[in-house]
This record gives sequence, structure tokens and C-alpha cells, in this order.
Amino acid sequence: MTAITIIGAGNMTRGIATRALAGGHAVQILARDESSAGTLASELTGTVTAGSLSTAVTGDIVVLALPYDAALAVAEQLRDGLTGKVVVDISNPVDFATFDRLVTPDDSSAAQELQKVIPASKVVKGFNTVFAGTLVAGAVDGHKLDVALAADDAEAKDAVAALVESSGMRAIDAGPLKRAHQLEGVGFLHMAIQGQLGNTWSTAVKIVGA
Amino acid sequence: MTAITIIGAGNMTRGIATRALAGGHAVQILARDESSAGTLASELTGTVTAGSLSTAVTGDIVVLALPYDAALAVAEQLRDGLTGKVVVDISNPVDFATFDRLVTPDDSSAAQELQKVIPASKVVKGFNTVFAGTLVAGAVDGHKLDVALAADDAEAKDAVAALVESSGMRAIDAGPLKRAHQLEGVGFLHMAIQGQLGNTWSTAVKIVGA
Repeated sequence: MTAITIIGAGNMTRGIATRALAGGHAVQILARDESSAGTLASELTGTVTAGSLSTAVTGDIVVLALPYDAALAVAEQLRDGLTGKVVVDISNPVDFATFDRLVTPDDSSAAQELQKVIPASKVVKGFNTVFAGTLVAGAVDGHKLDVALAADDAEAKDAVAALVESSGMRAIDAGPLKRAHQLEGVGFLHMAIQGQLGNTWSTAVKIVGA
Repeated sequence: MTAITIIGAGNMTRGIATRALAGGHAVQILARDESSAGTLASELTGTVTAGSLSTAVTGDIVVLALPYDAALAVAEQLRDGLTGKVVVDISNPVDFATFDRLVTPDDSSAAQELQKVIPASKVVKGFNTVFAGTLVAGAVDGHKLDVALAADDAEAKDAVAALVESSGMRAIDAGPLKRAHQLEGVGFLHMAIQGQLGNTWSTAVKIVGA
């Protein structure tokens, strides 16, 4: 059993919490608006608590389930509480005004920018290629979900991979943290093609044949 | 029936030619070493011819099935013959010495660099996320192959999409040519994770659920 803190009370928190709770893990949901964290927690089944951004972070793995800008701001706010912890960045830093570019520098990624804000934490990129609804469902067309991870700290990446696998998904090791640049490209593409796929947002990027 | 020219006589030529011939298209294979083009053509079934780089390009769609550096060099050499044609770039500009980066500028892609070399041709990015062996096989685990395409010329992209679909694969419109940056990231990642998947190079990146 791993203790996980998820920050944010949106659809991705619901998705990741659903899978983690199904895997028997303990989930703490923290949000700026404590009542939305509480409402979400009350809708989930398992060992789940809720709190605000002032609540002490109890998870060994902390997932920032927030848009890119908010993730940076919250990381800065909670920096001390995140020291030494594994912090998972799930964001896709898409320019939502144009949907035609990423807002991060060409030679970087959201995960690398986040790591600069919390240098004493171990940032792992993950879950950005997976949609919330498919996490709640737990599978797509009979396929386990693939969750690609990138990190520089091997132990941190292993911890998140173990969480992913014990929660019924397949972890794929995408390499060092800078591979987040490519993973965020995958997330961007996956979002950008939804229109032609019927806008169900219920698809998954899957490696088949292995 | 579409006339296709494929330049190069390697595994990707074998794969793309196999699918195109199965779809009833006419394939011309050209290579610096004419005898390897001829040998490959003799191993395929359908309307297939072979020639050297001096042979007149007969295809309306020209696929550069070459490594990135060679694709640029051949495009420059054949520039006049490629004028007005749809030219498909399938390359993944990976730094094969380190396997840790792409050799293209951070704000560009192989396809965009190729377009600069042949400005009077219509470059389409495609097939770079698909492995040669899976093209020969035609399917992976019962799934049609997904072939993602990126281009600025809508007519050119439609022509390649029609070729892809009539050859038994699914075309995915990834957007404008600059999306090749993200597609080449997908190709790079797909190659980089082969070790942990058993090094069979028989996997496919697939959008499931749609």
C-alpha cells in the first residue's frame, strides 16, 4: 500500500484516484477549494481523505493533477512540504487559445520547468498521455492503459511504475526527465486528433504487439 | 490506382511497397544501387518496377524511405524531378550515436528541414511511427496499423491518406507540417522503448477506443 496525495479536484484526480483506490492504495485529495476535494472524496470508494492546500501532505507520491500554470504555482507554494518527495507532473502545456503549440520553451517541457521550481523534489512525468475517463473506466477496448513515465531519479520512477502496475495499468519507461518533451508531444497530439475521432475523449494511446 | 515511387531499397521500402501493392497501387523502387532496388522489386508481388536515382520518377507520390541525412541529400539531388510532387518524409532524425536526442533544431523537424530543401514539392510527414516489419505483416495483434500524417498542403495530405486507407491502414490527420516535430518525438519514443518490450520491433503505436 502506497500513500498518494493528489492535488486538484478535477477529472484527472478522479481518474487517478479511482485506479489507485482500486489498487488498494491510500489517497489524500487536496485542493484550493477544500469542499470540492471533499465532494470528490465522498464519491470514491476506499481509503480516501480530503483537505485544502494548507493540509499537511501525507503521500509519499504527490500527483499535481492541475493545468500547467497552476501546477507551477502550487508547487512553488508547497515547495517545503514537497521536499524529498516524488512529485508527478501530468500536465500538457498546450496553448489552449490556439491549440497549435506548447507554451514551454522549445528545448524544455512542463516537467523540466516544474523540476526547476522544486529542485529538492523528484519529478516524474506521467499520466499526461492518458485521458481521465479512461482512467475511471480502467481499460479501453479490453486493453490495459499504458502509462508512460520519464524521470531522472530511478527510484522515484520505479515507485511510480509500481503504483501504476499495482493499479492495473502498464508502466512504460520512456527514459530521463527530458523525454517529457516527447511525451508532452504525444499528449498534445492525442488531444489534437480528438475531433476526427468523434470527440469522445475515450481513446487511449497504446503500444500493441507487446 | 495511384503511382508511387519509393526511394531507397531497405526495410521500410519493403514494408510500404508491400502494403501499397496489396492495395493495388503501382510501385516504382529507385535506389542509388540499382541492383538492390531490382532485387527487392523481384521479391514483391504486383505492379512493381525498379531503377536507379537517374531513372525518371513516375510516381505522383514519392516516398523517401531513407535515413534523415540521406533523405536531405537525395532530395537535393532529385529536386527538379520532385517539383510539384507529393513527397513523403518517413525519417526519424535520431542521434544514433547516443540515442538520447534528435539531431534536428529544437524548433523544427526532419520534415520541415526537408521542405526547405525542396520548396516546390509538397512534403507530407508519415509512416515514421510505424515499423517496417509491421507494414509487411499488415496488422499487429489484429489491429490495423495507424499511420499519422502531417502536412501543410491539404490536397497532398488527402492523397497520402487515401493511399494509406486503400492499402489497409488507418490514416490519422496529425495537423500541419510542423506537427512533424511531435510525430518524430513519437517515432523516437517508440524506438527508444523497444529494449524493455523485448526488442522485437514488432510493436505498433495505436489509438484504441475509436
